[in-house]
Amino acid sequence: MDFSSFLTSLGTSFAIFVVLMLMFTWLSRKQGNAVVYYPNRILKGMDPWEGRSGERNPFAWIQEAINSSEQDVVNMSGIDTAVYFVFLGTAVGILVLASLVLLPLLLPVADSDPGETASNGTFNELDRLSMGHVQPGSQRLWAFVFATYWVSLVTYYLLWNAYVHVSDLRAAALMAPIVRPEQFAVIVKDIPTLPQDQTRKEQVDTFFKEIYPDTFYRSMIVTDNKQVNKIWEELEGYRKKLAHAEAVYAKSRSGSSPERTRPTCRTGLLGLLGEKVDAIDHYHGKISELITKLEAEQKVTVREKQQSSALVFFSSRLTAASAAQNLHSRIVDTWNVMEAPEPRQIIWSNLPKSFYERQIQQYVVYVIVFLTIVFYMIPIGFVSAFTTLSNLMKLLPFIKPVVEENSIRTVLEAYLPQLALIIFLALLPKFLLFLSITEGICTESHAIRAASGKYFYFSVFNVFIGVTLGGTLFSTFKTIEKDPNFIVPLLASSLPGNATFFLTYVALKFFVGYGLELSRMIPLIIYHLKRKYVCKTEAELKEAWAPGDLGYGTRIPADMLILTIVLCYSVIAPIIIPFGVIYFALGWLVLRNQALKVLVPSYESYGKFWPHIYTRMMAALILFQLTMFGYFGVKEFYYTPLLIPLPICSLIFAYICKQKFHQFFQNTALEVVRHEVKDLPNMEHIYRSFIPPSLASDKLDDDQFDDAMSQTSRPGSSV
Amino acid sequence: MDFSSFLTSLGTSFAIFVVLMLMFTWLSRKQGNAVVYYPNRILKGMDPWEGRSGERNPFAWIQEAINSSEQDVVNMSGIDTAVYFVFLGTAVGILVLASLVLLPLLLPVADSDPGETASNGTFNELDRLSMGHVQPGSQRLWAFVFATYWVSLVTYYLLWNAYVHVSDLRAAALMAPIVRPEQFAVIVKDIPTLPQDQTRKEQVDTFFKEIYPDTFYRSMIVTDNKQVNKIWEELEGYRKKLAHAEAVYAKSRSGSSPERTRPTCRTGLLGLLGEKVDAIDHYHGKISELITKLEAEQKVTVREKQQSSALVFFSSRLTAASAAQNLHSRIVDTWNVMEAPEPRQIIWSNLPKSFYERQIQQYVVYVIVFLTIVFYMIPIGFVSAFTTLSNLMKLLPFIKPVVEENSIRTVLEAYLPQLALIIFLALLPKFLLFLSITEGICTESHAIRAASGKYFYFSVFNVFIGVTLGGTLFSTFKTIEKDPNFIVPLLASSLPGNATFFLTYVALKFFVGYGLELSRMIPLIIYHLKRKYVCKTEAELKEAWAPGDLGYGTRIPADMLILTIVLCYSVIAPIIIPFGVIYFALGWLVLRNQALKVLVPSYESYGKFWPHIYTRMMAALILFQLTMFGYFGVKEFYYTPLLIPLPICSLIFAYICKQKFHQFFQNTALEVVRHEVKDLPNMEHIYRSFIPPSLASDKLDDDQFDDAMSQTSRPGSSV
Repeated sequence: MDFSSFLTSLGTSFAIFVVLMLMFTWLSRKQGNAVVYYPNRILKGMDPWEGRSGERNPFAWIQEAINSSEQDVVNMSGIDTAVYFVFLGTAVGILVLASLVLLPLLLPVADSDPGETASNGTFNELDRLSMGHVQPGSQRLWAFVFATYWVSLVTYYLLWNAYVHVSDLRAAALMAPIVRPEQFAVIVKDIPTLPQDQTRKEQVDTFFKEIYPDTFYRSMIVTDNKQVNKIWEELEGYRKKLAHAEAVYAKSRSGSSPERTRPTCRTGLLGLLGEKVDAIDHYHGKISELITKLEAEQKVTVREKQQSSALVFFSSRLTAASAAQNLHSRIVDTWNVMEAPEPRQIIWSNLPKSFYERQIQQYVVYVIVFLTIVFYMIPIGFVSAFTTLSNLMKLLPFIKPVVEENSIRTVLEAYLPQLALIIFLALLPKFLLFLSITEGICTESHAIRAASGKYFYFSVFNVFIGVTLGGTLFSTFKTIEKDPNFIVPLLASSLPGNATFFLTYVALKFFVGYGLELSRMIPLIIYHLKRKYVCKTEAELKEAWAPGDLGYGTRIPADMLILTIVLCYSVIAPIIIPFGVIYFALGWLVLRNQALKVLVPSYESYGKFWPHIYTRMMAALILFQLTMFGYFGVKEFYYTPLLIPLPICSLIFAYICKQKFHQFFQNTALEVVRHEVKDLPNMEHIYRSFIPPSLASDKLDDDQFDDAMSQTSRPGSSV
Repeated sequence: MDFSSFLTSLGTSFAIFVVLMLMFTWLSRKQGNAVVYYPNRILKGMDPWEGRSGERNPFAWIQEAINSSEQDVVNMSGIDTAVYFVFLGTAVGILVLASLVLLPLLLPVADSDPGETASNGTFNELDRLSMGHVQPGSQRLWAFVFATYWVSLVTYYLLWNAYVHVSDLRAAALMAPIVRPEQFAVIVKDIPTLPQDQTRKEQVDTFFKEIYPDTFYRSMIVTDNKQVNKIWEELEGYRKKLAHAEAVYAKSRSGSSPERTRPTCRTGLLGLLGEKVDAIDHYHGKISELITKLEAEQKVTVREKQQSSALVFFSSRLTAASAAQNLHSRIVDTWNVMEAPEPRQIIWSNLPKSFYERQIQQYVVYVIVFLTIVFYMIPIGFVSAFTTLSNLMKLLPFIKPVVEENSIRTVLEAYLPQLALIIFLALLPKFLLFLSITEGICTESHAIRAASGKYFYFSVFNVFIGVTLGGTLFSTFKTIEKDPNFIVPLLASSLPGNATFFLTYVALKFFVGYGLELSRMIPLIIYHLKRKYVCKTEAELKEAWAPGDLGYGTRIPADMLILTIVLCYSVIAPIIIPFGVIYFALGWLVLRNQALKVLVPSYESYGKFWPHIYTRMMAALILFQLTMFGYFGVKEFYYTPLLIPLPICSLIFAYICKQKFHQFFQNTALEVVRHEVKDLPNMEHIYRSFIPPSLASDKLDDDQFDDAMSQTSRPGSSV
């Protein structure tokens, strides 16, 4: 890829971004679009245009994003989002500090080198500025050694600060004198087999009352809710349909005909076949039928489908935090206690899984993920090798006339390889999330973290190594056949050539991606279509503009991949750094806007994502250091061993950070929760907030429910 | 080494053992030796000859050892000793179960093989019974494959049972409704810098009172006791000397001269030089001088030498157990809390070491140990290669005439190589214990465990691999030069030849070692010499017969080495198994006697040694499985890969055991301590028991001491 196609790609991407940003400015001012552009504010009961109704400045959102404080983000979007901004800020910081030294130092050094231009005429304008241009064994490489150390040191410094900062954020949130139900509860797993003369509830209550006599409040046995959930969902579906039908009926009067027409529906498959009946009556009938069924099933569930897992509530959050850290049973496969997450993010179906089940499933999943990472490498390598234009021309000579048209050629060259990559990667996250839930993880946030980790390793291995290798594989296949030990130098020597490829990838990604994110074109269109043709009730409308969350599961691995690429190329082709800075700075701006006004987090894990981010940043740094070591070797630099201390330092640094900070992200330090909340918490309220919606019926009398919880349970159904 | 020299060695060892045992029977009956043969009973205030004064049976001690229950051992010697017997019992069990199948199966299979006798005439009677005698590729090797699986399965089964049993033992001990001071205390390390307006004591008290308001009792700040300990030791020394001088003076009257002669001493170096003065007066002066000095130093220490570490006492052992498991500070390098050990085994000087100090020291020690293990290999290899008789004759031809004398030759051949080895190994344990204490470990039992672990790895690497390799290295040096990949098959093929070497080593070790242990010849002689010539006072006598403890630091690694050797050779040369059985069974018998009557444990760690023993047993098993894999490869057995599942199974088994049981050996499960002790514990007594003897003066008023503890401390003196 030459310089002009790169500029074309960059220009096109930037133009798309500008257009999308202008559309955002225009569209977000329309009253009717408020629910698309300000849902977070609306859901929090705030005025969407608070304090700037008359403004005409199209960049007002940028000003607002920059002026917003971290506390604003915490208030509007929670700790997790604030932590994500710490990550973005750290990435920008690392790259800016790196570029301050690298750009003025390395670009002139590389450019002024007599270099390999004589021997290899294909070096273009960009490649002249890279380390690949410096002659092997040249004394100029000292500058690059210094640069490698500088980037590493900057990363250590900023990562350390970020870790301290995130730890403070988490502590402040956990310390706040607000009643958070999850701070008063713990999850108990692997309850041993029920003794003959006790109910499950008695067993749990006895055990915890004895150990925490003063602060134990009550327990809730986890039940097998599969059946009751199914009925409840069906019931909710009919309720929605009834509301819809009633809305249609109400509207029909206001139309041309004076008499209202009652909507009809068919009873058969998917409402398409079968007898045609009056919809409202039909739904009413279905609902009352299902309510009876649900109530019966609720009773059965609560009494007879108790599992070997429970939630235990304490009247003190100090006790709950302490209980979650203590070893309760001397055999670890019984009475496992862990911190309770928010009620909304509990994965109920995983709670009763036994210790061994979880262990085995976890390892099976690891093996599957490993196989996926390793064996997808081959197709990706081939795809990226095939989809360079010159390869395509070699293989499909008949497209030659089309491609030789200069404008088409430039556009194709710019986008073709990356598009295949992006589409390919879009298929994966769901699969990885599914695998992570299969592991037996009990919290949604944890499952997303696990999926995100898998996705990151997948990305790095397949995209980065796969493309770098695959791109050169095709042309140098014969060399490899001769010498199988050639792969490491091959990897390193093919790096500068691929730098421009990744540059284009990054540019495409940030301009188009963030443009779409900011303008919310797709949610906007869907919302308006739904509003016009589908939605009849308020609830349906609200569902249509539900903003969703930041989507950490795919967003963070994608960011991490960019960071890894930029870090790895930062010294080899320093020109990539400004693009990295733009990517993360633009991301910071756009997402700040989204976090403050649009997106609503679907859970809160109090920054537990940070250690994962941190680990991956360290992995990226170490990969960078190893790449540099290999690349200096290729450049036949005599003092290459001077780089050996770097990965060792990184490992030590990572170890110290882990030792020092990590435990607090796994457990709640008692120091943090030692001050109890101001008012005595309403324990009944906390308890109720954990009852799954399918079991929390108004009809079901409270006392009856509690009673049922402690009535006979059949030992056979447990374990 | 041929068969006759082996028999000579065995016979000599056995004869020594019988002689020693008879001497034990004879000597232990003498009233005057009671303090040497029954010190544990005497110290516990029991009658040494309880219930069998008139007996004449020389094997009575065997009967008593066999009839004693585990509870007896726990009562007399504590949980750690009982756990050690579980280990011995498990080792015997594994070897007996293995031999039941291996001896009748493998010996005939090996013996009846036409074998390599034709090609190699040097096979002797013992080697005929080993796997080395079976022809390569023979179908007879199937029996050995089966045997390998059998040994592994037996080990899994018995180890699992043993782990459950030890876990029960530990739980029972911790659960007992007896007041154990260490169950009510925790050690707090890494207390952060002192705020300006607080004393250290206030700081600690505030922190823990807030978190444990109901059960916090009080705290004790750790002080730098170096100075005060020195004075105290000096004072104790003079007190002993005074008592000695007074005893001498009292005795002098009863002699021939009617007037008492006052003992004299010299004031100079070591009591040898300087002015001659009256001893009693001199010591009295010194003592009163030192008491003043000690009191002054105690005040200074308590007020001004406070460190960043403390002991905190709770009135509930449940709270103490929970506190030791909780994360107290969100930054891990402050407020680290751990379970308190018994007062007598605290290593005070390590308590104030900071988090980073400990980390760094630990890694420095690991590096030193690694270097020790690797670089001692070379000398040991050479020593064992040189000290075979034929090698010595080659190198030192002038000893030939002596050696060719048949009787001398046999004895030399039997003992020469092993003696060098044993002497060599005796130098190490002290060094390793010193290293372990340098790591920053706070408990004596933990330091001994760490030293024992290092010693085990040292033994296995150096003795086992070193000797096996070294012994053949000398003769096959040229083969190695030709092909450096030859080492693994070399190791495996040299195994059977060394089997007899190890057999002799084991035989020597157990008969002579246990004979000395049982007869206590050395302590007996020392005691009688001291009683006659040195000791004048009761205290001095008591010191002279102080029995010491089992010495786990060297005993367990030695046992583990034997077990490793026997396991590794169990299938290759099954004839070794009976010797292993005798070693462990004899050890069980002799040490049972010692535990019940002689040795007094110097600490109690409630079985925390077990996970270490278990890990090493698993390591031995895996080494055995790998050796077999290599050896079958050498035997050109086509189905060798059938052995691959074994090490994998072992790793899974080890992982499951670790997951399931190990945590309870690190922390106290709350389930175990949920029942508080019967009577309210005397907290003042518990608190006092942790005051180091050099600070616990009678003269120092109690209140004053407490007061001093909470008086001003200078922030400067604390880290």
